Amino acid sequence: MADAPGSGRVFERLCVVGLGLIGASVALAARRGGGVGTIVAYDASAAVRARVVELGLADIVADTAAEAVAGCDHVVLCVPVGAIGAVAAEIAPHLAPGAVLSDVGSVKGAVVEAVTPHLPAGVAFVPAHPVAGTEFSGPDAGFAALFENRWCILTPCEASPEAAVAGVRALWEGFGARVDTMSPAHHDLVLAITSHVPHLIAYNIVGTAAHLETVTNSEVIKFSAGGFRDFTRIAASDPTMWRDVFLNNREAVLEMLGRFLEDLSALQRMVRFGDGDGLFELFTKTRAIRTSIVAVGQETAAADFGRRDAGQPVEASSSGGTGPRS
Amino acid sequence: MADAPGSGRVFERLCVVGLGLIGASVALAARRGGGVGTIVAYDASAAVRARVVELGLADIVADTAAEAVAGCDHVVLCVPVGAIGAVAAEIAPHLAPGAVLSDVGSVKGAVVEAVTPHLPAGVAFVPAHPVAGTEFSGPDAGFAALFENRWCILTPCEASPEAAVAGVRALWEGFGARVDTMSPAHHDLVLAITSHVPHLIAYNIVGTAAHLETVTNSEVIKFSAGGFRDFTRIAASDPTMWRDVFLNNREAVLEMLGRFLEDLSALQRMVRFGDGDGLFELFTKTRAIRTSIVAVGQETAAADFGRRDAGQPVEASSSGGTGPRS
Repeated sequence: MADAPGSGRVFERLCVVGLGLIGASVALAARRGGGVGTIVAYDASAAVRARVVELGLADIVADTAAEAVAGCDHVVLCVPVGAIGAVAAEIAPHLAPGAVLSDVGSVKGAVVEAVTPHLPAGVAFVPAHPVAGTEFSGPDAGFAALFENRWCILTPCEASPEAAVAGVRALWEGFGARVDTMSPAHHDLVLAITSHVPHLIAYNIVGTAAHLETVTNSEVIKFSAGGFRDFTRIAASDPTMWRDVFLNNREAVLEMLGRFLEDLSALQRMVRFGDGDGLFELFTKTRAIRTSIVAVGQETAAADFGRRDAGQPVEASSSGGTGPRS
Repeated sequence: MADAPGSGRVFERLCVVGLGLIGASVALAARRGGGVGTIVAYDASAAVRARVVELGLADIVADTAAEAVAGCDHVVLCVPVGAIGAVAAEIAPHLAPGAVLSDVGSVKGAVVEAVTPHLPAGVAFVPAHPVAGTEFSGPDAGFAALFENRWCILTPCEASPEAAVAGVRALWEGFGARVDTMSPAHHDLVLAITSHVPHLIAYNIVGTAAHLETVTNSEVIKFSAGGFRDFTRIAASDPTMWRDVFLNNREAVLEMLGRFLEDLSALQRMVRFGDGDGLFELFTKTRAIRTSIVAVGQETAAADFGRRDAGQPVEASSSGGTGPRS
């Protein structure tokens, strides 16, 4: 951590392990924010490492995880949740005394369980989850502004020293994020309903649509502007990351999915028995939630369904010459 | 219909009944496209009629539906599907001989059933459904470019004269839309999967999230950027319109919902039993569908999850002064 008071640095040497969308954005945000001295990067894929060099995402791109973390006062693991235990085991012997270890995983209980056994004495672990992302993956998808005005949730353990938690908080605040803290278990429940189950049902409906006999895929694609295309955006997220989320947050996902299915049964009955008042009441309530999300700045109020800038420009025809003559 | 060849007009006098998002956009697109002579508007709500006058959406705003349709060679009903039968009954005696009647309803079978019995001899009915919209409602939400590059589906009856179908097609092409034709029954099946069921499950998950005891509404709202907020956008659509869709496309919606639920049961089992390969395979396939939708121009490839221009500008801090000192 920063030695000289007033140096403006939160960490002297930051190591980012895993340069996907989030890892690349962390590197870019760290460079822009200035709260970090040297940025070291490592990715298990040689192709990704080469691309990280080309994109200039880091000051140093190391060839091994051991080399990468050596001498770093902060290490952020930006790998899929399922890989995090193995990566922790690999780097553990090479972590500098006093270093702060963190991650960006979308699941926290399983990450704490996977990392804690490998933690050397004198290294603090402060699990973190920036609630931000796009439907794109890989180092090219990263951008420095990804975390601006988004929430980053820290789930510090009882053993996490206060200074380590404060350091991670300062780093994310420097990225423009807002920081909250909660327990790993509560995090996993909150994210199950705000992120994991929405992804599960988006993946599901896109799969259903792709396997119908009565409606062709080409029709599904053509007429997707009626709502379906918004689900495909979510269902285009990284498959490895999301496989690992569901494998590692099973209990909370199944609990929230159970609630979703109970409610859907009630809604299905309303449709079957033509309960217009029930439908109208639900559809009015859900509109209010949307208004709150826009009000707290987690969403834009722009009419996105219209995708005004998405259409190909079409010549406004004033000829209409193919019209009928009466 | 246009008398003078070369006048460039598809219809001489267009009447828009119902000035919500779609009706207002039809009026604006008609004015911009130039394929129409005079634009007459009527809405059952006096407040909406007054607003239509203020916004200058039409050349004439009539006080009654009867007055509005009199002398018009084209009448487009832009009212909720559940109201369309009553509106057809009200205007039928006043429709000009030779007039072409159309609509913009999201359901076609029920609309054909509701309108056909009221159709006077000499008036053609060409049902239409522009697959376009936003999450906003009312005359202020309309804009001329809404239909650009979007599909408009016509479901002409056997009795629809060819010239009438061609006129409606030319009108929508003049709005920048692409036009397809199919049977009402097939339309209702296609839209059930591409639009109606997606809306149903979006409304449902937003309702589920709002009624949890373990996660507060304020947490749902704060952390909505993880996927949930995209569902709230869809679940903010007009309650009356959507109530009527589900009441009037019950069979197809229940059929597609049944398929969705079968698939979701299989997915739920994959999560429960930790079938990582099964999850990865599904998540990879769904990504490909997304790519196709972008490829055919029904969606932008921009990384919308990031909502780059949505965040409040955050000062990039280079102080990080609150960080720990080692």
